[in-house]
Amino acid sequence: MIIQLSNNISTEQKGALIASLQELKIQPNEVKTQFKNYIIGIPKSDFDIRLIGNMDGIDDIHRVSDGYKLVSKKWKTNRTIIDLGDEVTIGGNELAIMSGPCSIESEAQIENTVAHLLKNNIKIMRGGVYKPRSSPYAFRGLGMEGLKLFYQHCAENGIKVITEVMQVSQVEEMLPYVDVFQVGARNSQNFNLLDVLGKVDKPVMIKRGMSGTIEELLASAEYVFSNGNEKIVLCERGIRTYENAYRNTLDLNAIPILKEKSHLPVIVDPSHGIGLRQHVATMALAGVVAGADGVIVETHEQPEKAFSDGQQTLYYEQAEKLYAQLKQTKDLVNTF
Amino acid sequence: MIIQLSNNISTEQKGALIASLQELKIQPNEVKTQFKNYIIGIPKSDFDIRLIGNMDGIDDIHRVSDGYKLVSKKWKTNRTIIDLGDEVTIGGNELAIMSGPCSIESEAQIENTVAHLLKNNIKIMRGGVYKPRSSPYAFRGLGMEGLKLFYQHCAENGIKVITEVMQVSQVEEMLPYVDVFQVGARNSQNFNLLDVLGKVDKPVMIKRGMSGTIEELLASAEYVFSNGNEKIVLCERGIRTYENAYRNTLDLNAIPILKEKSHLPVIVDPSHGIGLRQHVATMALAGVVAGADGVIVETHEQPEKAFSDGQQTLYYEQAEKLYAQLKQTKDLVNTF
Amino acid sequence: MIIQLSNNISTEQKGALIASLQELKIQPNEVKTQFKNYIIGIPKSDFDIRLIGNMDGIDDIHRVSDGYKLVSKKWKTNRTIIDLGDEVTIGGNELAIMSGPCSIESEAQIENTVAHLLKNNIKIMRGGVYKPRSSPYAFRGLGMEGLKLFYQHCAENGIKVITEVMQVSQVEEMLPYVDVFQVGARNSQNFNLLDVLGKVDKPVMIKRGMSGTIEELLASAEYVFSNGNEKIVLCERGIRTYENAYRNTLDLNAIPILKEKSHLPVIVDPSHGIGLRQHVATMALAGVVAGADGVIVETHEQPEKAFSDGQQTLYYEQAEKLYAQLKQTKDLVNTF
Amino acid sequence: MIIQLSNNISTEQKGALIASLQELKIQPNEVKTQFKNYIIGIPKSDFDIRLIGNMDGIDDIHRVSDGYKLVSKKWKTNRTIIDLGDEVTIGGNELAIMSGPCSIESEAQIENTVAHLLKNNIKIMRGGVYKPRSSPYAFRGLGMEGLKLFYQHCAENGIKVITEVMQVSQVEEMLPYVDVFQVGARNSQNFNLLDVLGKVDKPVMIKRGMSGTIEELLASAEYVFSNGNEKIVLCERGIRTYENAYRNTLDLNAIPILKEKSHLPVIVDPSHGIGLRQHVATMALAGVVAGADGVIVETHEQPEKAFSDGQQTLYYEQAEKLYAQLKQTKDLVNTF
Repeated sequence: MIIQLSNNISTEQKGALIASLQELKIQPNEVKTQFKNYIIGIPKSDFDIRLIGNMDGIDDIHRVSDGYKLVSKKWKTNRTIIDLGDEVTIGGNELAIMSGPCSIESEAQIENTVAHLLKNNIKIMRGGVYKPRSSPYAFRGLGMEGLKLFYQHCAENGIKVITEVMQVSQVEEMLPYVDVFQVGARNSQNFNLLDVLGKVDKPVMIKRGMSGTIEELLASAEYVFSNGNEKIVLCERGIRTYENAYRNTLDLNAIPILKEKSHLPVIVDPSHGIGLRQHVATMALAGVVAGADGVIVETHEQPEKAFSDGQQTLYYEQAEKLYAQLKQTKDLVNTF
Repeated sequence: MIIQLSNNISTEQKGALIASLQELKIQPNEVKTQFKNYIIGIPKSDFDIRLIGNMDGIDDIHRVSDGYKLVSKKWKTNRTIIDLGDEVTIGGNELAIMSGPCSIESEAQIENTVAHLLKNNIKIMRGGVYKPRSSPYAFRGLGMEGLKLFYQHCAENGIKVITEVMQVSQVEEMLPYVDVFQVGARNSQNFNLLDVLGKVDKPVMIKRGMSGTIEELLASAEYVFSNGNEKIVLCERGIRTYENAYRNTLDLNAIPILKEKSHLPVIVDPSHGIGLRQHVATMALAGVVAGADGVIVETHEQPEKAFSDGQQTLYYEQAEKLYAQLKQTKDLVNTF
Repeated sequence: MIIQLSNNISTEQKGALIASLQELKIQPNEVKTQFKNYIIGIPKSDFDIRLIGNMDGIDDIHRVSDGYKLVSKKWKTNRTIIDLGDEVTIGGNELAIMSGPCSIESEAQIENTVAHLLKNNIKIMRGGVYKPRSSPYAFRGLGMEGLKLFYQHCAENGIKVITEVMQVSQVEEMLPYVDVFQVGARNSQNFNLLDVLGKVDKPVMIKRGMSGTIEELLASAEYVFSNGNEKIVLCERGIRTYENAYRNTLDLNAIPILKEKSHLPVIVDPSHGIGLRQHVATMALAGVVAGADGVIVETHEQPEKAFSDGQQTLYYEQAEKLYAQLKQTKDLVNTF
Repeated sequence: MIIQLSNNISTEQKGALIASLQELKIQPNEVKTQFKNYIIGIPKSDFDIRLIGNMDGIDDIHRVSDGYKLVSKKWKTNRTIIDLGDEVTIGGNELAIMSGPCSIESEAQIENTVAHLLKNNIKIMRGGVYKPRSSPYAFRGLGMEGLKLFYQHCAENGIKVITEVMQVSQVEEMLPYVDVFQVGARNSQNFNLLDVLGKVDKPVMIKRGMSGTIEELLASAEYVFSNGNEKIVLCERGIRTYENAYRNTLDLNAIPILKEKSHLPVIVDPSHGIGLRQHVATMALAGVVAGADGVIVETHEQPEKAFSDGQQTLYYEQAEKLYAQLKQTKDLVNTF
């Protein structure tokens, strides 16, 4: 049950409401976000909603039978649009395209990526400064120094920054230099990290886990929302199956299902999904038809020299062709 | 190694060729199809192809390193187009749409389906008369009686019939009443059935197994081709994963990969794939963008009364909207 | 619902019973096995069992809520023991050990295998004469000639033969030369084959499919039983997962679950399961502790020269050590 | 390549060694553990090991071709034994049994668990105080207050404590109250946490991820070792597959494979593995036969009232029976 509180609810009214919930054996969870105050009631058994519905200080009240509540579409039928400022949004009619290298490698690389994005009117740059790597001996990213350079060049050019945060202790220092925090597949159920990201006022894109279910991805999003941050984006990036012909099995089924169950925008990541450069564009376009609100792709001036993930990274030329096709495809889908 | 024989190769020339292969410890497999004679050479170790390349009676010779040979794109770069007659094809520029009920249930049902297809200019009707069912107590199809009615109504209206064959003993009796034999997911590696279907001159559509790999699907196609039948269609219909939010995980990654590795046309089956009526159209369209040469969908006048698979079956109204969108989408893809 | 009919039920009594079932909208399925006559009633909705329970000609009546009925433990709590004659059984207190090569290759090989089995008092020999192979160009077995030799040498020495049957047309000719028919993983849902094997009076061992569920395996067994053959053995042989460190993921969880849900004996196949010679013995022993009634293992005089599956095949020396450990382990388990 | 340094290597000698490595384009990683100093050399291409092997200050040098190095069995053939003090070990001839509730719930519960363990001579108690939960509204554990009580009662009775750590910030405060840190399946690739756990001198038990590969689990262990902590235990706890008949698919194949590839001890967790109380004992015993060095099981005075995981938790009576059978089984395995 989601109770939307009035902005002018008094302390007494709130106290009375919580007392009533407890009397009905409904566990009350207070949630205060950037936009609104809520109480999420988790009932132990069935109850008569009318006993609460008429109380003072309540704007609205919704039964939500899903395990996740605030991210469910059952109570919020309008789709969430994330506003990054400067007319860059995620979740509206226009496709959000995020492009850039797997890892930030050097200032020169940042500069040539920014130039490529400007040329193509792409507004969001991706790039990792903290890299989760299976082996402790592999390149683990440039860290904060890289992020500062990354952010500075983007900000100067009106480009938004999305980058992965790997642990709680990084959140605060990264905060000024990030437009969207990305939570990687391996951290999709790092609940402490999600808790903390729920307490900042920056959008969070959560990737589905390696073998994450739809339910689990939405429950992870619920962690962020219930801690106070409504600005959440979901990302399908491929799951682990028995098939070895591609890096992961990009699961486009997830896109219509996530959009049916939740009001949050959904991004598709074909680069990690199929993991083969020659098929990234095809899967990106298929993802848009499946309903994706945006696409995150890996691009590099010289993919064969990239520090990581080169085999799934597009050449600028390929990326340019893709951007145009993405727009045409999104235009067609908008007419359906 | 694939050796394409000249049409006028003499018995002596062929004997000499086979003798040379055996001398090189290359196992020779003679293949005679509707169109051409081949010898597939399976070498035990490396060899010098020039020792054979200059022999008489050979049109062409190709090294193919894949496990499958004749279905590989390595030797045949032109895409295969299956001609069903009456200008109905699978694999060309036009999308092959196959539509109809899961099971053939009655003559009335056949009639209203045919009317629906005629109205929408759809040229291939699907419908099962032998149904693989997990439980021995479930409806198992109308059998040959149903097929004869099914074929008669379709033939009278210029519509082609695709239906599932489940075992070797059915092939001969079904042959006159079928335009395309369908091999179901559970029979994807029923090698005896594939052998026999390789010996008839009717197209065969092979569905990927429940947990079939790309390699296995192509090897199954190789069974049909190497027995003499070049008219093969592949079908992606969803794989089994840990995710329970949909019936199967329709794996659209398979489509670009199959088209990269093989010259055979590929069909997408979104009905069995995602298994949820409200998302079938979305996944069908995404499949076309992924490169599918056609779509097979379940439609029914009253899906809620269907004998099987009702929850994934489209209403005629939904199907009509989908047919139009499929054409628009295919038109767009053709420009890419 | 399972109705066990009296042996002396009259035609009139049976007619009256079926009529009553139909009146209650319960679909009656008559089953006549080697041992007993049954009617399996599949109800459309709830009903009052007392309306049937008092009718004449009925020995017993059981509600079975599972999808499978006759193979369920809900109505038959005594475990099924399969008697192969000559005091060889599957499912009793003694472990059934089946050992032999992947493929029957030659008479000499049969002879040395038989000698190995005799020396170790092993009563069941495995060996394939029809081999399901992914590639049409691979060795596909010696066929009936091989089977006759195989059976002759075994019969002369009191050893029972288990071998794979791949298609309906093989059943009749194989029948005199087989003690247990094996249905392979790829045919686990070949319902036509299961139907036919339900009509012969020889035991059938059904392997779990590549990605077969517990429910599906039991439903496949139900096909055999409901066609008239109660002599069924189940076999866990590993499932397909994302993990590539072994050939298949031998799923020992399946053993206690199958024995909880069904009265049928369960065999473990560690050779195909883990697929690595050095770990076959370990997994075989773990399978016995998990509750397996028997073990099927691949052995060969010279595994490195085996026509197929050499890397998972035990040397005779290893096998001998394993047989002894299996007995010790089974003895311990019997005390728990 | 692993270079074991002499304890008395001089600064100059080490400098010379590192310089030589760099000259050979081998990336040197210095590792200093509780026991020893190492340099891990990651070569870019092939090299002549003799150029280093004769340098001063080196005890030994090993080529290790695996992706993981220090946890590989290729250089350290003796199995690692973890000493918890008071003669409690993990990895020796005696089975390490860890038993206790899923969550620490109250002091009374700790007391009755400790009494149960003392009675049965079990030396390690498990219990969660920080619980990873899919839903943010579920019980998340008693935290540090619970841990202090947990540790106090155990320490007074000579019982060792194993409990899950979920994030970097918890490590320091938990350190005095923990005998073994447990890293849960969801944190199996939380590399920052692994880094930090590599810097403390307490054993760490790493659970395999939900869909973690053998390679990934060993790479995670490499994170801990390469940060300085050699005291590592691996744990198989079931993987995620398509099968829903059990909670997870306990993958006993992993045990012999892990013991073949690594010198680290391996624990089996049948409670999370199969997730069904009535089969936990069976799978625990099978795990021991598969080679597990220990077992972690959930036990509770009243499982039906447990805060979490009640359905997979053993009654004390069941646990007692299991402890005895585990010992008998381990004794038998030791004779093989």
